[in-house]
Amino acid sequence: MNICDNIIENNSTHMNGKKSLTIALDIMGGDKGPLITIPAAIMALKCTPNLHLILCGDEKIITTQLIEYQYLDNKRLTIYPTTEVVAMDDKPAVAIRFKKNSSMRKAVDLVKEDKAQACVSAGNTGALFSISHFVLKMLPGVERPALISSLPTNDEKKHVFMLDLGANVFCDSNILYQFAIMGSVLAEQVDGIKNPKVALLNMGEEEIKGSDHIKLTASQLTANDDINYIGFVEGNDIFSNKADVIVCDGFVGNVALKTCEGVAHMVYNKLLTILSQHFFARILGRIFAAPIKKIFKPLNPDQYNGASLIGLQGIVVKSHGNANSKAFLAAIMEAVKEVERQVPEKIKKKLIQGLMPN
Amino acid sequence: MNICDNIIENNSTHMNGKKSLTIALDIMGGDKGPLITIPAAIMALKCTPNLHLILCGDEKIITTQLIEYQYLDNKRLTIYPTTEVVAMDDKPAVAIRFKKNSSMRKAVDLVKEDKAQACVSAGNTGALFSISHFVLKMLPGVERPALISSLPTNDEKKHVFMLDLGANVFCDSNILYQFAIMGSVLAEQVDGIKNPKVALLNMGEEEIKGSDHIKLTASQLTANDDINYIGFVEGNDIFSNKADVIVCDGFVGNVALKTCEGVAHMVYNKLLTILSQHFFARILGRIFAAPIKKIFKPLNPDQYNGASLIGLQGIVVKSHGNANSKAFLAAIMEAVKEVERQVPEKIKKKLIQGLMPN
Repeated sequence: MNICDNIIENNSTHMNGKKSLTIALDIMGGDKGPLITIPAAIMALKCTPNLHLILCGDEKIITTQLIEYQYLDNKRLTIYPTTEVVAMDDKPAVAIRFKKNSSMRKAVDLVKEDKAQACVSAGNTGALFSISHFVLKMLPGVERPALISSLPTNDEKKHVFMLDLGANVFCDSNILYQFAIMGSVLAEQVDGIKNPKVALLNMGEEEIKGSDHIKLTASQLTANDDINYIGFVEGNDIFSNKADVIVCDGFVGNVALKTCEGVAHMVYNKLLTILSQHFFARILGRIFAAPIKKIFKPLNPDQYNGASLIGLQGIVVKSHGNANSKAFLAAIMEAVKEVERQVPEKIKKKLIQGLMPN
Repeated sequence: MNICDNIIENNSTHMNGKKSLTIALDIMGGDKGPLITIPAAIMALKCTPNLHLILCGDEKIITTQLIEYQYLDNKRLTIYPTTEVVAMDDKPAVAIRFKKNSSMRKAVDLVKEDKAQACVSAGNTGALFSISHFVLKMLPGVERPALISSLPTNDEKKHVFMLDLGANVFCDSNILYQFAIMGSVLAEQVDGIKNPKVALLNMGEEEIKGSDHIKLTASQLTANDDINYIGFVEGNDIFSNKADVIVCDGFVGNVALKTCEGVAHMVYNKLLTILSQHFFARILGRIFAAPIKKIFKPLNPDQYNGASLIGLQGIVVKSHGNANSKAFLAAIMEAVKEVERQVPEKIKKKLIQGLMPN
C-alpha cells in the first residue's frame, strides 16, 4: 500500500464526488522549501481528486520544479508568484510589516480573500502565528489562537489532541476554557470522537492542586454541560488514553511536547546502540527496525502530522520546519479534513453555546 | 557485584574512617512502609560503616521486623517510637496540625533538634514539604524549598539535575534565581561537577522567548559571575547533555517529569509487545531485557533515586511512594552524600555571594 492509498483510505470521503476545495501552500517555507513542498503538493493532488492547490512562491523556481515533475500545466495547480520569503529567524513584527509579498503572507491572504479555504506553511512558527492572527482575525468569543496537534497513546488506535503547544506563553482561565471548547470541536469533527473527554493538564489530579486560574477553568468547564470535562490529568496521563483532549497553556504544552520528543530521541538512540552492539541483535534489529520506528515516529507529532492554529476565522496548518515531503503532505491532508468538516464554523457555534449561561 | 558493592564503590569516601553520621528514617511512610524501609535501612548499614539510623515508627512493627532480620540489638540502629502515620491522602495542614507524633514529623523534628543530620521519607509529598518547611525553616535568602532530582542524558555517564519538580506551583524571577544557585551547588557538591552549566527551561532558545519573569531571571543569572549560566533550553534539551542543571517552576517541572515517565512507560510497553509477538524477537527480548530495562529505569527518577527538598535548614530526601527497598536505599545514600558534602551550608554560602551586588 503506498502513501496515496493510505491517505485515500483514511480520507475516503474525498473521493465521493465532493465539490472542489482549494488550499493555498507557502511553497518557500521550511528548511528545504520547494524541494519538499512541491513533491508533497503533487502527491496531495494524486490522492485527492477534488483538490485544487495554489502554490505561493518564486515563480521561476516553482515552474522549474513543476516541469521536472511534468505537472506544469495541471489544471488543479495555480502558481501565485511572490517575491519575498519569511526567513526562519525573522521576527514576527518584521514579517508582518515588511514582508507583505512573501509566500507565507500571500497564502494567508488568499484564505482571507476567500480564494482558498485553508493554507499550509512549514515556515517560521511565530511569523505564521502573527500573520494569521493579524490577517484572519479571531472567531467571535476567542481571545487567542492555539496550536493543537495529536500525540499517540498506549492504545495504538487512539491518539490525544493537545493544546496549546506554544502559541501563547500564559493563558488565563477564560482562554483555557475557550481552548477546551475548541479542542473538543476539533476532536469531534476531525477524528469523529463523540463527546470527547476533555482534561486540564495539572501537577496533580486532586481538585486542590494547581494554580488559581486552572481551578477556575475547571469550575467553568464543570458548569458547561456541552463539554465532557473529566478533570485534571498529570503529564504521564497524556499517553494513558484517559482523555481525548488535553488543555494547558502554551509554555507548559511546549515543554511537554518537546520533553516527549527529547525522551523519544534519547531512548531510540540508546536502543539503536544496544541493537548494534551484538551480532544477533544487529540481524534482529534489521527485522524489527520498521515496527520500532513506528513506535517513535508519532512522538514528534508536529514533524509528522502538522499542527493547526485554531480559533481563527480561517484554517491554518503548520508543518514542521524540517518536515519531509510525506510530513508536508500530512499537513495538507489535515487542512483538507478541517475544510471538509468546517472546523472554524463548528467552533464558532460551540463557543456561542459555551459562552451562554446554562 | 551486589548492591552494596555498587554503593561502596560510588561512595568510597564513607569507608575512610569518617566520623559517624546519623539519619532519621520515616519507617511508616510510602505505600509499603516498614516492609521496604526496614530492609533498605539494613542494607544502608551494611554499605556504610559510619552510618547510624534512627527508625521512626510503630515500635512493635519495627521490633518484629528487626527480629526477623536479626538486627534488633544492632548498636547503629535506634528505634524512635511514634503513634501516628501521615496517610498518603492527608492534607498538608492536617499533617502539620494533628499528626505531631507521626513517624514523618518525628524524622523531621530530629533534624531540627540536631539529633539527626538528615531525614528520609517515602510518605505523602505535600505533607513532607509542608512539615519540613514549617519545622526546619528556610535558609537565609531562600524564599521557597525546591524539589530536585536527576534525569538521564544521551551520555550514559552523565545526568542532569532538574528543579523545581513540583514543590511550588508558580515561581517568580527571584525564586527561580535562588533555585539556579541551589541547583548549581547541589550538582557541584553531590556530583563533583566543576562550574556546572545552568540553564532555564523555556519554550524556545531565543532571548525574546518566554514570560517576563523568566527573562528577568535570565538577566539576573547573566549578571552573576559565580554561576555558569548558559541560557534557555527547550524540553528536548533536558536529555541532550547541554546543561548540568535545569531550572523551572514546579508546575512546568512536574509536567516535564511526568511526561518523561509517561513516554518511557508507553514506549517500553509497546517495545515489549513487539518483542513478544515474534519468535526471534522473544529471544532478542530475553538477551537484551537487562540493557533495555537500564534505559528506561532512570526515566522515573523520583522512583529510583529519591528527590531532595533543598533550600531548608536541614537535609530532607523524598523517596517515591511506591519505591522498593533498593529505591529507598538509594534515597538514604543520597541523604548520606548531602550530609557528607554539607549541602545546606554550601548553598547558604553561595546564596550570600549571589545576593551581593557584583
